[in-house]
Amino acid sequence: MDRNQLFEQIKIKKSFLCVGLDSDIEKIPSFLLKNNDPVFEFNKQIVDATAQYSIAYKPNLAFYECRGKDGWVSLEKTVDYIKSNYPEIFLIADAKRGDIGNTSKMYAKAFLENLPFDAITVAPYMGSDSVTPFLTYKNKWVILLALTSNKGAFDLQFIEDKDSGKNLFEKVLEVSKEWGNKNNLMYVVGATKAEMLSEIRKIIPDHFLLIPGIGAQGGSLEKVAKYGMNHQCGLIVNSSRGIIFADNTENYTNASQQEAQKLQKQMEKLLKDKKLI
Amino acid sequence: MDRNQLFEQIKIKKSFLCVGLDSDIEKIPSFLLKNNDPVFEFNKQIVDATAQYSIAYKPNLAFYECRGKDGWVSLEKTVDYIKSNYPEIFLIADAKRGDIGNTSKMYAKAFLENLPFDAITVAPYMGSDSVTPFLTYKNKWVILLALTSNKGAFDLQFIEDKDSGKNLFEKVLEVSKEWGNKNNLMYVVGATKAEMLSEIRKIIPDHFLLIPGIGAQGGSLEKVAKYGMNHQCGLIVNSSRGIIFADNTENYTNASQQEAQKLQKQMEKLLKDKKLI
Repeated sequence: MDRNQLFEQIKIKKSFLCVGLDSDIEKIPSFLLKNNDPVFEFNKQIVDATAQYSIAYKPNLAFYECRGKDGWVSLEKTVDYIKSNYPEIFLIADAKRGDIGNTSKMYAKAFLENLPFDAITVAPYMGSDSVTPFLTYKNKWVILLALTSNKGAFDLQFIEDKDSGKNLFEKVLEVSKEWGNKNNLMYVVGATKAEMLSEIRKIIPDHFLLIPGIGAQGGSLEKVAKYGMNHQCGLIVNSSRGIIFADNTENYTNASQQEAQKLQKQMEKLLKDKKLI
Repeated sequence: MDRNQLFEQIKIKKSFLCVGLDSDIEKIPSFLLKNNDPVFEFNKQIVDATAQYSIAYKPNLAFYECRGKDGWVSLEKTVDYIKSNYPEIFLIADAKRGDIGNTSKMYAKAFLENLPFDAITVAPYMGSDSVTPFLTYKNKWVILLALTSNKGAFDLQFIEDKDSGKNLFEKVLEVSKEWGNKNNLMYVVGATKAEMLSEIRKIIPDHFLLIPGIGAQGGSLEKVAKYGMNHQCGLIVNSSRGIIFADNTENYTNASQQEAQKLQKQMEKLLKDKKLI
């Protein structure tokens, strides 16, 4: 999916919501456990309930890998189901991969070629040759970690570079934007640090940003839009637990639908305020 | 496996060699493809041929994930085979994971609990709460990226911190050594930058280091030992392609055995020079 198509979807659905499929088998409603593949059944129901309000889904690989090959089957079925039934959806592998070139090439093959993901999250620490193998696929995307939503972000990401006076996460933006461009590279910026978005927009005005940290982690959607929205929206805001685990009874699909709709309504207002729809 | 047990194995085998199982199905000898699980068959034969010269094996997850659930089956069978037949082996998941706390916890479960790995490689960018969930398992290890062997290491890892004058990779060492200790935390330091090891040893004199970059990547074993070896050896030196793809005919096990033995002989000399055996 290219940048203009993504913006089209945002305008059509009046939403820039991504639903994070952190589908922990120990947290899904227990009555689902009688199914042959409870996690796939859960994901399928969640997707059907929320797809009208969402432009993206983001399976979090850890929650599939921790179940070994069964987890991979759930993942494969989930992404195939989404691509078959909702081809307009932008599909993100939240994998935080990154290794030397020949290894990153294999991760790229795993997620962007063998699985039908549109994008993969990548960690920047190992530099250009760990990232560029993911950038060779037409209309596929790297979403590079810049400023993350967790407390540990303060351990290294704010180190100040002596030469430039920039923080490490700003250096990551400056250096990495040359590895790709606004048509194949996005960045992760946590909603919990939304005030930083105006500085970030000076470095990368046009790139899309994937914003985690709304909901369970406490970030504010209004602040994110205020400081981060650009002329093509430029934002994909993720909510995982707040939507998928809104309820754990037989009513869970309704509850997740309501949570997704609530966020979509807020996003619609923010898009209108910005005169994008 | 604890630190003393690891050092015991180094003394018994007169080796600190790790064999990297980057078992690309497109690079293994083609006659193996007639097997039901060619990658497992390849790994099994390589392990049988090299285990007397090696103290560790390191499956590289990318080469398994790129084959989906079949790849996971090959991985599971490989690690089970090693643990059953060579219980003295230190088993490293080269996965370069790292995410917010609840997600890292799931990755830790995947590799240190559900699979019988002794250690996992972890990326430091997201800070303490992305790493500490891996440190809660008794006698299991985090191997944190510090200074990697690839060219891209120069993009970010040498940024100089304004406050301390330290490079980013040195800051990673300084900050992260407080998250764990020498009994549950090791570091990746590339052999291609072996001269840096004396500075690194000032910060972490006692920690074990996993050293990639020997062989295909061009690093020198002598330099690594000269600058990095400590009173318990403190080194696990990895070779992947140089050993496992030494030959791609029916003679491949002999060829890989010879390459492993060659490195072991060099390591034996270096351990004797240091009076550790």
